[in-house]
Amino acid sequence: MTQTNEPTDEAEIRSVIEKWVQAFRSKSVVAAMALHAPGIVSFDIVPPLRYVGVDVYSKPFEAAFAAFEGAIDLELRDPSLTVRDDIAFTFSLNRFVGTMTGGQESDYWFRWTACFQKIDGKWLIMHDHTSLPTDFASGKAVQTLDP
Amino acid sequence: MTQTNEPTDEAEIRSVIEKWVQAFRSKSVVAAMALHAPGIVSFDIVPPLRYVGVDVYSKPFEAAFAAFEGAIDLELRDPSLTVRDDIAFTFSLNRFVGTMTGGQESDYWFRWTACFQKIDGKWLIMHDHTSLPTDFASGKAVQTLDP
Repeated sequence: MTQTNEPTDEAEIRSVIEKWVQAFRSKSVVAAMALHAPGIVSFDIVPPLRYVGVDVYSKPFEAAFAAFEGAIDLELRDPSLTVRDDIAFTFSLNRFVGTMTGGQESDYWFRWTACFQKIDGKWLIMHDHTSLPTDFASGKAVQTLDP
Repeated sequence: MTQTNEPTDEAEIRSVIEKWVQAFRSKSVVAAMALHAPGIVSFDIVPPLRYVGVDVYSKPFEAAFAAFEGAIDLELRDPSLTVRDDIAFTFSLNRFVGTMTGGQESDYWFRWTACFQKIDGKWLIMHDHTSLPTDFASGKAVQTLDP
């Protein structure tokens, strides 16, 4: 167990979270991937079940950013943050707003959980989980809920 | 930062995970809830976006267990586990199999992330996130994927 400086670590992780938001707003796949551990295991909002590694995980980011012609906005509602030693986790309800290339408006709240590890002195996302709830009666992902 | 005994903590958390599986198999809401912190914040597979507190979070368990007339089986595929000090997180792809009261077979893989905290010497789930991926083209939750 290495010694930790929790207030500094918290500030550094909050900065990673802020950069993650900015990566969406600037639609930068490179900026987004720089925040993830090389071995990231992601349960993303889109299929398949799991993405492993930044090369693979960059693909849904590329597809999502290409699908929105204008600005993307992302709002995080009160992300919690728990830090000990060299690991941490955060979770929040996030709002995604954007206009697709076909003109369709997208505006929904989703759930986000991210687990961090400090690797070579740098806090990186090593696992994340992003989703909508499922209405099993209709088989639909529910995009109409507010926090 | 309290001192930790990581091998013991790992074993204790693996035992909580095993009890979580057994709670599904025995369809026991009480057994499931005993594994969660009183202030659990859950992003469950079913709406709404978030459940806060064991009283509230017991409701989707009651509904799910009542909806399946026969046995429920749950299989966890290689749950990862990261433990430091008094926090931990796990994630895995899980298979849910059961027969609903109307006779409909349910058999799908879902994603599960759980964050633990050791509270009064006891490891408890303080956050979890359970989901299916979303196919945005159809609006459907995807229940047909294998790991």
